[in-house]
Amino acid sequence: MSYQYVLPGEIEKRSFEILTKELGDRKLLPENEPVIKRVIHTTADFDYVDNLVFSDGAVTKAVEAFKAGAGIVTDTQMALSGIHKSTLESFGGTARCFMSDPEVARLAKERQTTRAWVSMEEAARLPGRWVFAIGNAPTALIRLHELILEKKVDPVLVIGVPVGFVNVVESKEEILKDPVPYIVARGRKGGSNVAAAICNALLYTAAGRTL
Amino acid sequence: MSYQYVLPGEIEKRSFEILTKELGDRKLLPENEPVIKRVIHTTADFDYVDNLVFSDGAVTKAVEAFKAGAGIVTDTQMALSGIHKSTLESFGGTARCFMSDPEVARLAKERQTTRAWVSMEEAARLPGRWVFAIGNAPTALIRLHELILEKKVDPVLVIGVPVGFVNVVESKEEILKDPVPYIVARGRKGGSNVAAAICNALLYTAAGRTL
Repeated sequence: MSYQYVLPGEIEKRSFEILTKELGDRKLLPENEPVIKRVIHTTADFDYVDNLVFSDGAVTKAVEAFKAGAGIVTDTQMALSGIHKSTLESFGGTARCFMSDPEVARLAKERQTTRAWVSMEEAARLPGRWVFAIGNAPTALIRLHELILEKKVDPVLVIGVPVGFVNVVESKEEILKDPVPYIVARGRKGGSNVAAAICNALLYTAAGRTL
Repeated sequence: MSYQYVLPGEIEKRSFEILTKELGDRKLLPENEPVIKRVIHTTADFDYVDNLVFSDGAVTKAVEAFKAGAGIVTDTQMALSGIHKSTLESFGGTARCFMSDPEVARLAKERQTTRAWVSMEEAARLPGRWVFAIGNAPTALIRLHELILEKKVDPVLVIGVPVGFVNVVESKEEILKDPVPYIVARGRKGGSNVAAAICNALLYTAAGRTL
């Protein structure tokens, strides 16, 4: 068999070397580079070099907030599962997802809307500072956008990376106009894995990890 | 704002209509169609139309096995989290991931290998019939390939969709030669989300869902 033997701790390092080489002389803003590279590492999809857009200073603001104990709200159990919670918790933060909350399910049914929609309203009531990482549901991002405009929530950062075909592109474009720090994957692509990868890149930067 | 209002239950249906339209006159084998479409639905990435390869009858074999109570072993908590467990459990199956098992971590450290490697050895000892869904670690797929050749495991189906840059392409090509049913995403792309999407497409087919 033709695979290379690579020590466990070396696999990630080697992967980043390969993808860095393939990025060639493409210039990335140093602040954003760990995020872009970790998303490519997670997806093997170089489209994200062009898709990912960052508001000015978004990465630095999120990293500083994590160091000060900010938490993460996300819209799927999959993203929650992929976030490196021990790093987050080392700074005092927690990760929350309201999608499986029975009260959220009840309210969504009653109001004929999505659980994602209601889950953002629940999250907006949390005390403290939060990064909102939306990797699946455009309805979560649309409701978050409205709550921002209604001044009912003031996120540290909006990670807007839902995936799919209905309202996905539109919901992301709205966030780009909002008065909040954002990291958005323009277009249809994204996902819970991308949301978790962006959170982890920020957390690792906060923790002083070089990859 | 320019988004369309779509009732919650309609979003998935509308998404499948859009992606089906964009597939145009591309011919898909009817048996494989729900799997290919659900992966595109999950990733918004049409590359999977070409990347996904199926051994003869792989879908039918897996669907029949799920109906008879087969379970799913996976290599990440994220995939485990994304698998529709209530559908799996309705047939009597369970979903397992050994990656966070302390004994797996201890053995991996002792043997200087990955937890993914050791987790496949643990999984091979399970009684009953299992679909192996590998969405992250090429080392899991490499060890699974060896265990198959050593006749230490006889999977219902190998879902080979790890993602990345080191040994990923090679590990998938080995599975294509093995005497087992497979669904493989050739090349570098894949992921826990893709592994979960393939499992769910098979489970929904077993349950008689049309999407």
